[in-house]
Amino acid sequence: MQHFSKRFHQKANAQLLQFHSSISFDKRLAKEDILGSLAHVKALFHAKILSAEEAEGIQRNLEEILGDMEHQNFLFSEEFEDIHMNIEHELIQRMGDVGKKLHTGRSRNDQIALDMKLFVRSELQNVTVLLQNLVKSLLALAEQHLETYMPAFTHLQKAQATTFAHYLMAYVEMFFRDIQKIKNTLELLNYCPLGSAALTGTTYPIDRNLTSSLLNFKAPTNNSLDSVSDRDYLLDAMHNFSLIMMHLSRFCEELILFSSQDYGYIEISDDFSTGSSIMPQKKNPDAAELIRGKTGRVFGHLFALFTTMKSLPLAYNKDLQEDKEAFFDSLDNTKACLSIFTAMVSKIQINKARMREACYQGYIEATDIADYLTAKGLPFRDAYAMVGAMVKDAHEENSVFQNWSLAKFQEYSPLFQKDIFQVISLESMISHRITLGSPKKENVILHIQKIKREL
Amino acid sequence: MQHFSKRFHQKANAQLLQFHSSISFDKRLAKEDILGSLAHVKALFHAKILSAEEAEGIQRNLEEILGDMEHQNFLFSEEFEDIHMNIEHELIQRMGDVGKKLHTGRSRNDQIALDMKLFVRSELQNVTVLLQNLVKSLLALAEQHLETYMPAFTHLQKAQATTFAHYLMAYVEMFFRDIQKIKNTLELLNYCPLGSAALTGTTYPIDRNLTSSLLNFKAPTNNSLDSVSDRDYLLDAMHNFSLIMMHLSRFCEELILFSSQDYGYIEISDDFSTGSSIMPQKKNPDAAELIRGKTGRVFGHLFALFTTMKSLPLAYNKDLQEDKEAFFDSLDNTKACLSIFTAMVSKIQINKARMREACYQGYIEATDIADYLTAKGLPFRDAYAMVGAMVKDAHEENSVFQNWSLAKFQEYSPLFQKDIFQVISLESMISHRITLGSPKKENVILHIQKIKREL
Amino acid sequence: MQHFSKRFHQKANAQLLQFHSSISFDKRLAKEDILGSLAHVKALFHAKILSAEEAEGIQRNLEEILGDMEHQNFLFSEEFEDIHMNIEHELIQRMGDVGKKLHTGRSRNDQIALDMKLFVRSELQNVTVLLQNLVKSLLALAEQHLETYMPAFTHLQKAQATTFAHYLMAYVEMFFRDIQKIKNTLELLNYCPLGSAALTGTTYPIDRNLTSSLLNFKAPTNNSLDSVSDRDYLLDAMHNFSLIMMHLSRFCEELILFSSQDYGYIEISDDFSTGSSIMPQKKNPDAAELIRGKTGRVFGHLFALFTTMKSLPLAYNKDLQEDKEAFFDSLDNTKACLSIFTAMVSKIQINKARMREACYQGYIEATDIADYLTAKGLPFRDAYAMVGAMVKDAHEENSVFQNWSLAKFQEYSPLFQKDIFQVISLESMISHRITLGSPKKENVILHIQKIKREL
Amino acid sequence: MQHFSKRFHQKANAQLLQFHSSISFDKRLAKEDILGSLAHVKALFHAKILSAEEAEGIQRNLEEILGDMEHQNFLFSEEFEDIHMNIEHELIQRMGDVGKKLHTGRSRNDQIALDMKLFVRSELQNVTVLLQNLVKSLLALAEQHLETYMPAFTHLQKAQATTFAHYLMAYVEMFFRDIQKIKNTLELLNYCPLGSAALTGTTYPIDRNLTSSLLNFKAPTNNSLDSVSDRDYLLDAMHNFSLIMMHLSRFCEELILFSSQDYGYIEISDDFSTGSSIMPQKKNPDAAELIRGKTGRVFGHLFALFTTMKSLPLAYNKDLQEDKEAFFDSLDNTKACLSIFTAMVSKIQINKARMREACYQGYIEATDIADYLTAKGLPFRDAYAMVGAMVKDAHEENSVFQNWSLAKFQEYSPLFQKDIFQVISLESMISHRITLGSPKKENVILHIQKIKREL
Repeated sequence: MQHFSKRFHQKANAQLLQFHSSISFDKRLAKEDILGSLAHVKALFHAKILSAEEAEGIQRNLEEILGDMEHQNFLFSEEFEDIHMNIEHELIQRMGDVGKKLHTGRSRNDQIALDMKLFVRSELQNVTVLLQNLVKSLLALAEQHLETYMPAFTHLQKAQATTFAHYLMAYVEMFFRDIQKIKNTLELLNYCPLGSAALTGTTYPIDRNLTSSLLNFKAPTNNSLDSVSDRDYLLDAMHNFSLIMMHLSRFCEELILFSSQDYGYIEISDDFSTGSSIMPQKKNPDAAELIRGKTGRVFGHLFALFTTMKSLPLAYNKDLQEDKEAFFDSLDNTKACLSIFTAMVSKIQINKARMREACYQGYIEATDIADYLTAKGLPFRDAYAMVGAMVKDAHEENSVFQNWSLAKFQEYSPLFQKDIFQVISLESMISHRITLGSPKKENVILHIQKIKREL
Repeated sequence: MQHFSKRFHQKANAQLLQFHSSISFDKRLAKEDILGSLAHVKALFHAKILSAEEAEGIQRNLEEILGDMEHQNFLFSEEFEDIHMNIEHELIQRMGDVGKKLHTGRSRNDQIALDMKLFVRSELQNVTVLLQNLVKSLLALAEQHLETYMPAFTHLQKAQATTFAHYLMAYVEMFFRDIQKIKNTLELLNYCPLGSAALTGTTYPIDRNLTSSLLNFKAPTNNSLDSVSDRDYLLDAMHNFSLIMMHLSRFCEELILFSSQDYGYIEISDDFSTGSSIMPQKKNPDAAELIRGKTGRVFGHLFALFTTMKSLPLAYNKDLQEDKEAFFDSLDNTKACLSIFTAMVSKIQINKARMREACYQGYIEATDIADYLTAKGLPFRDAYAMVGAMVKDAHEENSVFQNWSLAKFQEYSPLFQKDIFQVISLESMISHRITLGSPKKENVILHIQKIKREL
Repeated sequence: MQHFSKRFHQKANAQLLQFHSSISFDKRLAKEDILGSLAHVKALFHAKILSAEEAEGIQRNLEEILGDMEHQNFLFSEEFEDIHMNIEHELIQRMGDVGKKLHTGRSRNDQIALDMKLFVRSELQNVTVLLQNLVKSLLALAEQHLETYMPAFTHLQKAQATTFAHYLMAYVEMFFRDIQKIKNTLELLNYCPLGSAALTGTTYPIDRNLTSSLLNFKAPTNNSLDSVSDRDYLLDAMHNFSLIMMHLSRFCEELILFSSQDYGYIEISDDFSTGSSIMPQKKNPDAAELIRGKTGRVFGHLFALFTTMKSLPLAYNKDLQEDKEAFFDSLDNTKACLSIFTAMVSKIQINKARMREACYQGYIEATDIADYLTAKGLPFRDAYAMVGAMVKDAHEENSVFQNWSLAKFQEYSPLFQKDIFQVISLESMISHRITLGSPKKENVILHIQKIKREL
Repeated sequence: MQHFSKRFHQKANAQLLQFHSSISFDKRLAKEDILGSLAHVKALFHAKILSAEEAEGIQRNLEEILGDMEHQNFLFSEEFEDIHMNIEHELIQRMGDVGKKLHTGRSRNDQIALDMKLFVRSELQNVTVLLQNLVKSLLALAEQHLETYMPAFTHLQKAQATTFAHYLMAYVEMFFRDIQKIKNTLELLNYCPLGSAALTGTTYPIDRNLTSSLLNFKAPTNNSLDSVSDRDYLLDAMHNFSLIMMHLSRFCEELILFSSQDYGYIEISDDFSTGSSIMPQKKNPDAAELIRGKTGRVFGHLFALFTTMKSLPLAYNKDLQEDKEAFFDSLDNTKACLSIFTAMVSKIQINKARMREACYQGYIEATDIADYLTAKGLPFRDAYAMVGAMVKDAHEENSVFQNWSLAKFQEYSPLFQKDIFQVISLESMISHRITLGSPKKENVILHIQKIKREL
């Protein structure tokens, strides 16, 4: 785009034009730009700046342009720098000088602020649907595995027994929080910047309540300087995405781990795995790794925008143009990861026998044995010490508690009776975890039902 | 702290003990740790694990320890690794073996999760008060400057006229959003992890609804694995702090700029400035610079924690210990910056005459002149082009519009009449910015009143 | 790309194929991929795995493919996932089964490691040239402004007098350091990974010294596991880019500042400025702002890759695929910024009169006056205190030292004599800064000559 | 510290004084500050600004102060803001007004620049020693495990066989690169800023070559503005630390993984493990986890400083004070992690039998079988496909190749002969990896010897 005014002696440098052109990425905002213009036309008519006929003409032409775009029937040109100028130029081409009146009482500064808000509002709803789909898939999987036992870890050392359903519900909690946070982001951004013009509003009697309401915003924004320089809602959305990716990265890490041969708890289905170009046996969890890898990327974009915003004076500065590619890439990757992950996790195969076997290694019964002794009257700290010694011995002889005889137990304490075998059965260890939020089947069902209600 | 169990052959390495000891920083959680224990005691009594007498004894001793701490009458010891063990050890010292029963049915994993939530909940309320104080100071300042004219900038080039009140209200919007976001963070974190024990809950009949309600949480958390590994609320809070710092950095940048000699719009008061060790004339805006500089620090902590959380398997891992120093430092610096900034901004001196003079440079009347010509019938794009030429000429002869004669204006167009002088007066330019959110005095007053109501 | 082996029951999921396909970005490595293959062919021939005829045939076909690519005469296909498979498939299409032998004794793991190293090595040389061009432009500008006086700032408050040449040479130092650092990055990366195969080398007698030397590396890498998982050199290069961008951001900040109307020290030429869609007077330093804004982006990519690398187990993991887009975008933006900045800075107009005038505000003579008094026998701390009082009084009466009479000076001390006027002349203040590295003309010339020699 | 000059009407605000005081952390620079002053005294004497007696007196007193500090016999006071003023004040207390002369011809700006460079120079040498110790420990361990077989992974799936020595040498490569990079950082920072004074040098005839050489720098810096605002070398050092931590995080991830029960390849010694407060069986790799967790912290500090530096105008700004805490914490944590890690890794127990057993799962012989068939004349792509089918069948019947009979092999191809058993023995697979950098014993020994030479 060339200089607008006669203030300049010289044309813009060609390299510069390419450098600051944004049409290659802001064309994604085409629909939002037209929706915003349609509302603005109504305000201009209402303010008697446009006649009914003019307004109707502009409206019809904008709608036709939108239709053409949706049918890929529109050529964006680098010559017109950004999405606003591409559409305005096309409008004038189609309807002549009347089209020039559309830009009355607004500026590209409030226009881009509006376009981005409309875009983000719509896309955050899409992300919410993807999160809901993921949560639903996890709930469905959890319902199948209420009694699939597996070791739970702290420090990646086996800690206590749990069920696969309980394990999955930990991730349901995370993604459910993400849904709620996106809702908060949506509510806080839902104020309309249109009418803020370049930075101090306009002398034209634009009814900002009208445009705000036509575009389904809660209200117009309160301050025009802030309106054209605010990118807080992008940082909020990108923070939401970073949390989603962080949660996915943890889940992927575990799927990669659990499907490594020495664990063997799960197997990722063939259609979500890839091979090697020279190792014929390889079946790699590529999708899970790539999601984990993309976590850094989404964090990086958040950091990039925070850095770009740091110390920027009011109001609009060209630096702000950098918000778009960062946001778009962050959004696209988060959506792709959610979508792929949901498809992948729904099809993992659970190796129940291997998971059960894994529960018998690592002495995960230790807490329950200590509780058993405590219930029989031994102070907890003494019980704790005794079980520590039992573990040390078992580890040295390479035995596991599930294979111990009663006599062996009684070498440590006469308090051990036959009921110890019942106590250290997986079924019993789980069903005696009675506190809310524990792996006990009834508790997990309660949780599943609660999430279903709230979804 | 030494190993707890007899499972080990060897004592922990001395360097390791120091490396992973957290008492030097988690002693800040002493009060929260005791408040959590007081609720847990009630739950143990309710579950008949403690007798009335035992419960009462533990409670009394914990309260005494808290009292001693508040009177700086308590020695924290590196020997006991963390705040939990320091307090438990002291309790047992004071009341003997009964004290050992306190740890029944809980683990340090749910204990630290609880302590941090209590701490963060309380501190976010403190940050809110600091934000409210800042907003109030800005409102008070704005009310004094409803008619103090100044140039508004885009691209740091003079764009249009505004008032200092309108300028300040842009920042009020930012900090007001920050208040709302902290409220959201508070609401989403307000679920009680106590009773999740090590990671899968406990076999003791702890009533989690009871402890949750005693500690003023909305409800217990839903999943024990998630409860001991969730640090989302810290990332949310640190995101809130990063936004606050970003906003402060923009404000500080402008204060530094506006108080530099060539601007001279404001002067920072002597008591918020510093001198140089060898340049006698220097009066430096150190406080504003240091706040701006600390922005990077607060961003850095957010990214540090995101990175630490990336790919962590469930549930508790020692990596999570790194959350504390990052959060504390982020919190402390944000609070200090808010507090210093509020004190500093309240005392800045406004150089009204200089600000007004600055409005006459930079051709900020250009938009209003173009609107004037448009109102007289010239198409906006033609008016725009004509004013561009006027600016170019004025710039070349080093004149400003305020000094032009009517004849000079009419060299460009006969549409110019005597009323042009009225139109380009600062008073008129401001009062004709009629859209909501503009610098027009009545609009700014409306905004001020709205914020006052909502505070 | 479909699964390679018959190990799988099911085809890869279509969404997954698209998700992990890299051809859309790794096609940039086409030339490097072929150069690497050409060296590998020679090694296969040397190892008697290929006959002379086979080797010659593969070589000819690869060269033809490269030629076709350079004439945009090659269609990359999503079907073949990555650049390696695209080229291998084409080779086999062209020459039949002999083409399949090319992949003997190597894997995509060492192949991509090699491609990236070749690409980075070549591009770092391009960045070096851009840095050298920038330095040369700055030197040329400095030579024109050895006696162009301007205020130097600390805390954005006027501190002491300097020259524009001296000011420019500060940035020369920064960019010259950047050149040296890129040289270090180049030297440390210059080891050849080819022959590391999938991760443990190969059973084929590939002469790694031969391929290394054919490709102009210093030597083969030392460990095959490290070779296929090392991305340190990308982090180093992206650190170099971050420093370059940080330096540019500082320079741009100052150009924006100095060209704002209240400073008015410089004017950015019309062809590197842009206008506004509604404010006819605007001439915005868009290029400088966009460069400043892109700084966050380049930092963000560095952070993204560090995060992606954190905690990755050996050897190759799919996460590593994320290195490419981050690096490419970081590189492209750094190069564009260097190029645009060099063009822009060469054409800025210097307002010497305004800069000189600016030196007389802000009491930048204060240190020289204190030194004058000290030279006449007053202890420095007393001189310093006296000048502080003089500044306070001058500031209050709105006067500047350059307008003071001798009598006025003598009100503060009889030590002031007529020579004080000479001492506080700009020429004298500069020429008496005699230490190496100071703005004194001779010193700046020395520095310019030194850089010219070392370039 | 109070205002220095009489330029101010009001004392500094008490809260501000505390806010910008740096003595709590910059007291670490005490020794460097005095070493710098000792060189400056010599330059002042040489410039005839100090008499021999004065110079000698200041020198003696400074040395005594240093001695007192080293014996913890020195009280730092918040009243004197920073390390420079604390020492200067003490000097004047001890020797009277002569002490005031020390600050002639320098400023706190070049003083702090010097102090930090001296400090960093010295600490980077300490980090180098820690890295060398780590490398030596790894070499010693590798020499013990030249024939300890283990699976090597890509995508955390078993890929091919290697040895523990070969695995360790991958990390040796990383840390060895870190040593070389620190050397580069040291060389590039080794220029002396002293004599740059506040920002434009000084009118006193300070011989900068003299002070530079007294302090063992290569030369004085070239530009005074750059000298007082350059923090590049800190960013370089913190980048080095980030790489070290990234490497440690990968190693720790694998140690945690390999010591988890389902892997069981290694055991971390008791003295580098910790227990749980309620699970008696736990033995947690806390040290490895904490190091992995601290990686985020060190990355965070790097990005904090990059962000702080972004867009800072020349020359000194108070924002720069933020460099110190970030650097110190980054340094301290990197050193602690290197030291703990070296101690921990030297004592890990290797479970050779389990590692060997793990090699027989996961079909890591697949590449060697395919190579075997290729050597017998089958085209590689066909051999690859056949072995893929063999893996699929073996996986389904839950068998491993090591247990297959010749007849079973021959079901797939008559090319299989008795020598296949030799080919898929671990010993053979390793010894046939003949390329440089592979796990073949002789190759690993070569690598060990090379590193030993270069250390």
